[in-house]
Amino acid sequence: MPADRLLQRRVPRWPAATLLCLWSLLCMASGSLRGTGDLGVVIGRADGSLTVIETTHRTALGRIDGLGDLSHASVVFSRDERYAYVFGRDGGLSKVDLLRRRVEKRIVQAGNSIGGAISQDGRVIAVSNYEPGGVRLFDAASLDPVAEIPARSGEGGKRSRVVGLVDAPGDRFVFSLFDAGEIWLAEAGDPGQPVITRFPGIGRQPYDGLITPDGRYYIAGLFGEDGLALLDLWHPEAGVRRILDHYGRGEQALPVYKMPHLEGWARAGDYLFIPAVGHHSVLVVDPHEWKEVTRIALHGQPVFAMARPDGRQVWVNFAFPDNDTVQVIDVDRLEVVRELKPGRAVLHMEFTPRGEQVWVSARDDDRVVVYDTATFGELARLPVPKPSGIFLTARAHRIGL
Amino acid sequence: MPADRLLQRRVPRWPAATLLCLWSLLCMASGSLRGTGDLGVVIGRADGSLTVIETTHRTALGRIDGLGDLSHASVVFSRDERYAYVFGRDGGLSKVDLLRRRVEKRIVQAGNSIGGAISQDGRVIAVSNYEPGGVRLFDAASLDPVAEIPARSGEGGKRSRVVGLVDAPGDRFVFSLFDAGEIWLAEAGDPGQPVITRFPGIGRQPYDGLITPDGRYYIAGLFGEDGLALLDLWHPEAGVRRILDHYGRGEQALPVYKMPHLEGWARAGDYLFIPAVGHHSVLVVDPHEWKEVTRIALHGQPVFAMARPDGRQVWVNFAFPDNDTVQVIDVDRLEVVRELKPGRAVLHMEFTPRGEQVWVSARDDDRVVVYDTATFGELARLPVPKPSGIFLTARAHRIGL
Repeated sequence: MPADRLLQRRVPRWPAATLLCLWSLLCMASGSLRGTGDLGVVIGRADGSLTVIETTHRTALGRIDGLGDLSHASVVFSRDERYAYVFGRDGGLSKVDLLRRRVEKRIVQAGNSIGGAISQDGRVIAVSNYEPGGVRLFDAASLDPVAEIPARSGEGGKRSRVVGLVDAPGDRFVFSLFDAGEIWLAEAGDPGQPVITRFPGIGRQPYDGLITPDGRYYIAGLFGEDGLALLDLWHPEAGVRRILDHYGRGEQALPVYKMPHLEGWARAGDYLFIPAVGHHSVLVVDPHEWKEVTRIALHGQPVFAMARPDGRQVWVNFAFPDNDTVQVIDVDRLEVVRELKPGRAVLHMEFTPRGEQVWVSARDDDRVVVYDTATFGELARLPVPKPSGIFLTARAHRIGL
Repeated sequence: MPADRLLQRRVPRWPAATLLCLWSLLCMASGSLRGTGDLGVVIGRADGSLTVIETTHRTALGRIDGLGDLSHASVVFSRDERYAYVFGRDGGLSKVDLLRRRVEKRIVQAGNSIGGAISQDGRVIAVSNYEPGGVRLFDAASLDPVAEIPARSGEGGKRSRVVGLVDAPGDRFVFSLFDAGEIWLAEAGDPGQPVITRFPGIGRQPYDGLITPDGRYYIAGLFGEDGLALLDLWHPEAGVRRILDHYGRGEQALPVYKMPHLEGWARAGDYLFIPAVGHHSVLVVDPHEWKEVTRIALHGQPVFAMARPDGRQVWVNFAFPDNDTVQVIDVDRLEVVRELKPGRAVLHMEFTPRGEQVWVSARDDDRVVVYDTATFGELARLPVPKPSGIFLTARAHRIGL
């Protein structure tokens, strides 16, 4: 081949390569770039997977596998709403990149764990463990261990199982010691040296905890004992007091199919809506006096009572055998105004942050159903194998989750 | 050059181009991909620019120019937290891509406009205009016009200037007619055919409006008249009633350096904190009775009273000549606990969504100062020419902004 022909051939090839390169760059730049404020994840409890969803067009974007035992999993999000931190029952802590849809890092930090939280500044992940009992703190970027709080108490300093772990303003974490009957407040401003304040003698077997949406009141539920333990974080010096003396399993020892999650309490309008333990009703409580105002009869034993973000509705799901049903309470009228049947074994519900949609998981029908909360019309139905918890990135901006 | 030498030279060039291409792809993929939950914008009022900021490392990411007259600008965000919609005084409506940091689209939709809102479902942008008076609705994706609400009232059907436009649950917008003394409620579920409910005779010259964070109560301030107009959106059939009879300019005709923005009302703890008009104080109001509980003496005439998201603090800035100062009220003690001097002409403040930081603009010192709200320590200081409003993407998830 003569040199001049070779030269002729060389000329067009470089522009072709350049064009290919530019085209690829454009694809990468346009295809992957997206906002993260409308994303979320659905836990697939059977196969240890996450389904990444988006609420603008109400679609599934993809799946992420390899997250271990997610039979009692929960999720928090990084403050930029890009990463999900997944707490597995098996002690696994996974950092998942929602944009690349892959596991960024995964560690198994304990033998049996129950949940976690992210600090107010987003720098620390805390995990509450059953085995070994206590709380462990990790760097949110690297998942490197930062500190351990063994939660030792009583004679011999046995480690207690820890439940009801939440974040609180001031880079604090609050949690309850199931075996010791204590609430602990950990200040993690210097996360390597958390400063602990102990509140002993709060009652037997705290089984779960919550913090009010403003981050002020921490409440622990007591298993096998009536009443709840309340700590006012604006006045920790006042100690823990007992509220709602009649709340709990009670002396009648009702058959309880599932202890209600305390994160299944709704603040709506001027009231708290609290699932009654073992009863087919929700309690309406005045949070200023911590007294019951009324109770609303329901279809079954409530598990979660969730407030629509504007507080006009509370949506309730139920324990077995009534777990194919969701009821909607109108907060203004204090009565049930709608009953829906999303599918068998409704495990969880999540509202979009401004409340126009609610996402509902129906485990035994392998689907997630999305409703319009104004019309109760079905907006979408997504196939997800054995879905349980649904978590939207808007949680990144909230206190106490 | 002989052909064999040309061939030799060709071989290594293709891998080099490929490597360059791959490297570029990697750069694009890693450098541009990011979450959008920690982003925000600062309005540069002198030159019509936006500075894009992020609150994780507290830096400026870049500038966007060409946004027209931003001397009284406000911003809302798309539900995915990727796009900012900027409402300029000159009637400009700009859609800005925070990831690419460029103006996606810009229209001039009126001669003089005062603010805007985004519908609950994120599909509609509403703008309130002075000239011509009324509200215009636009498609949030394309900025194509969707509907016009001319806000005609009285004899001759003159168009009124519109103020105090907010979104409300149920894809509604609420706004006030300055010239007509009316509140209008527009249901925009079918945005091309908004359904209007009028509330006439609410008082003279409503100059601004707000909606409570739950989206229930709409309140209009009345210029030159005492009291405020309240509409309960849970009970629009009950009509508008007058509250806080002593709120306003009053009979003493005090010199008012700047009418307080009604969006400068804070809900914190059990109370509303409301800048007093013309007085050096903030009113503390019980929102159940709409009665004044007490008032707190301050350094100057308050402009904005902003609640830290957990409600434990209210931060206040002031009108000229006291506008170099910010005071912090402790909500539990109902007293000023701190005074800061961020710079000359403090125009706006914005909290991160979980409240650990507050960003403050000091226009005449051309800087934005970031404080730790727990320690009041300065976390960062960013040079921004003539900064005014600061808006973080977390607003995308809130009602009534």
